[in-house]
Amino acid sequence: MPCKPEQKNIKEPTVTALPTTLEEARARDARDPLRTSRDQFHIPADTIYLDGNSLGCMPKATAARLRQVVEQEWAEGLIRSWNDADWINLPQRVGARIAPLIGAEPDEVLMTDSTSINLYKLAAAAVRMQPGRRRIITEPGNFPTDRYILQGLADSLQEQPELVTLPAEQIADAIDEDTALVMLTHVHYKSGRLHDMAAITQQARACGALMLWDLSHSAGALPVDLNGCGADMAVGCGYKYLNGGPGAPAFAWVAKRHHERLNQPIWGWFGHASPFAMSDDYVPAEGLRQVLTGTTAVLGASALETGLVLFADIDMAVLRRKSQQLTQQFIEAVERRCPKAGFELASPRDPEMRGSQVSFHHPEGYAIMQALIDRGVIGDFRAPDIIRFGMAPLYVGFEDIHNAVEILGDIMDYRHWDDPRYRQRNAVT
Amino acid sequence: MPCKPEQKNIKEPTVTALPTTLEEARARDARDPLRTSRDQFHIPADTIYLDGNSLGCMPKATAARLRQVVEQEWAEGLIRSWNDADWINLPQRVGARIAPLIGAEPDEVLMTDSTSINLYKLAAAAVRMQPGRRRIITEPGNFPTDRYILQGLADSLQEQPELVTLPAEQIADAIDEDTALVMLTHVHYKSGRLHDMAAITQQARACGALMLWDLSHSAGALPVDLNGCGADMAVGCGYKYLNGGPGAPAFAWVAKRHHERLNQPIWGWFGHASPFAMSDDYVPAEGLRQVLTGTTAVLGASALETGLVLFADIDMAVLRRKSQQLTQQFIEAVERRCPKAGFELASPRDPEMRGSQVSFHHPEGYAIMQALIDRGVIGDFRAPDIIRFGMAPLYVGFEDIHNAVEILGDIMDYRHWDDPRYRQRNAVT
Repeated sequence: MPCKPEQKNIKEPTVTALPTTLEEARARDARDPLRTSRDQFHIPADTIYLDGNSLGCMPKATAARLRQVVEQEWAEGLIRSWNDADWINLPQRVGARIAPLIGAEPDEVLMTDSTSINLYKLAAAAVRMQPGRRRIITEPGNFPTDRYILQGLADSLQEQPELVTLPAEQIADAIDEDTALVMLTHVHYKSGRLHDMAAITQQARACGALMLWDLSHSAGALPVDLNGCGADMAVGCGYKYLNGGPGAPAFAWVAKRHHERLNQPIWGWFGHASPFAMSDDYVPAEGLRQVLTGTTAVLGASALETGLVLFADIDMAVLRRKSQQLTQQFIEAVERRCPKAGFELASPRDPEMRGSQVSFHHPEGYAIMQALIDRGVIGDFRAPDIIRFGMAPLYVGFEDIHNAVEILGDIMDYRHWDDPRYRQRNAVT
Repeated sequence: MPCKPEQKNIKEPTVTALPTTLEEARARDARDPLRTSRDQFHIPADTIYLDGNSLGCMPKATAARLRQVVEQEWAEGLIRSWNDADWINLPQRVGARIAPLIGAEPDEVLMTDSTSINLYKLAAAAVRMQPGRRRIITEPGNFPTDRYILQGLADSLQEQPELVTLPAEQIADAIDEDTALVMLTHVHYKSGRLHDMAAITQQARACGALMLWDLSHSAGALPVDLNGCGADMAVGCGYKYLNGGPGAPAFAWVAKRHHERLNQPIWGWFGHASPFAMSDDYVPAEGLRQVLTGTTAVLGASALETGLVLFADIDMAVLRRKSQQLTQQFIEAVERRCPKAGFELASPRDPEMRGSQVSFHHPEGYAIMQALIDRGVIGDFRAPDIIRFGMAPLYVGFEDIHNAVEILGDIMDYRHWDDPRYRQRNAVT
């Protein structure tokens, strides 16, 4: 199978002719092939939402769908809805909707649990499939829960895997015959830097290691081709670019060639070959279903399903092109509007190397972000000094970017961020 | 601390003067101290719902609350709602509402994940707290996912625990100095048999073993006194008697004396001492919060919180008395109405030994249950031959029981269950 690098063939229009005025931005929105998508979302008034990489906006259809699930399927159908409303197949049904976004077959993806729990299951399964290999390689500084899960595995699993943490650029050389698994987050949660999935996967597999990707910041944000790259496993999040709602269930992908040998450690009735036989001994289901454990979170799963419907007619190459244009427009506008404000780009300047987000370092980042939020521009802050802006291409437009940077410029010009109200730190996700 | 057996001091009114006619049943409902609770629930028309032990009815307040969470907190508040709507503290807040129902302190209970995932975490932590002890003792034939989880642990954990399965009556004698953990489901999911929590816990602890209870079929159905009994750990379900909705999050309880030594293996950012510091190395939070892993399922958690509000003013001794009366009325009515229909009681006859459910064996159990459901009496079937009826005391009344048994009698008299439509088996939860 040829390894198709997924981000190469759409270079041309990304950096040319980006809007620099309000009029140009509006004109660009008017001819945006994704412009009708925005109407499918509820965007709060007077808000420019650049945090869809943390929690996606609510699709308008979701409110009605959840009323139906709660007030009809639960309230009226009660226990019968496991069959009559097909709750029982939600993990498979939602998984099949995620599959085309990540280059997977419909029966290779299940929606279940949280990203962290799924990572525990799959990373453990990977180590158990690689007898005689003990190392798990990952990088420092990426989304911390991924590392915590691997640290917990190293602390608890019978195989006693050894966790090796190396900077991204040293990983390829470090993969050896003792490496069971390489685990990386595809898009860096802080900087938005994109790993070369095809190249790294190829290096891992050439050495006999398995390759597991966390797609939390890439699924729904750019085209991903797991099978095309020959990857082995992946996990990802439902509440960011997939617009599944707060704490939506996550997903797990395993390449079909591994399904038969898979043995994840958290055995539960939803993963049993015959869940309703209620037999005493665990017999894993065939195929991927053994990855399931407990009862499906029906409310969250139904919201996620509704969010995914909005991707049904989206050309991911078009989405990627718009995403690259939005991020590039944002970088150029900030540097043009606030050249001496002390911002230092924390994201790759090359749009081919970036996910759908832009981050800047600034020593006053926390207060600046609070001032922005106060003015209706919602991004987020990541310690110690990063302000982060996510451009969800389904509902963020070129005018949004223009206006957001104008407000940022205003805040910097007049030192609004110096207001003591903005300097008090709270927990922020 | 004295060990208070929780089901002893309410014997008197349980078996006397139960209604045997429709008029008596209605009169009993009229003077039921819990009668106003029923009005807080949506009960579908023409339905007698005796399956609240599988999926509780929808509290009327939940529909409105979920609209608020979805259409305001998510749609309008977006990422800000983690602070502004206090999503961040849902595990603790909902846990504190569960605490009084199970004899726990408010800071000893967290709502998170599924029952199965929580059992994996706590059983693993228990084994890791007991160096030199390798056995986990449990019983056969109880809710299977509990056994599957323990089997998965035995298959994966560094300590290589050995799972020993013994009939309930042999467990006390088998607990020895090699026993790390005794894990039992308090109320048997099929028969409704209630374990003597105080006695078994005492036996386990006398031998230095830890005691972990699954309260899925008891939390909200009868008074539980974990601390009074000196238990160590517990898990339980949010979607049965707690009325949290389909696939609601579950809960985990750990006695405070163990919090400091706890080390569950699925390390995630919500369990980190400083989740938003995003540091590379896992440092468990103080107290019970280290049991958390991933992002809270906000929709399910909010529904569960609303369901729990209905317990705020409930006297659990009163609830237990009504539950025992309902189950006793049901048993006596079935035996009076259908003496020769072939039903064999599968539940304990002594109401002190029963949870809030009644089961009968019948070789045609599957078809009989389908016929009942067709007539609006919803219970469930458990292989190979058990029909099961749950009496959720907050919304099931004495008239319901009377009418359900009349319909059952009719079905048996006229062999409605012989209808070929009722003989086709589907997946049913």
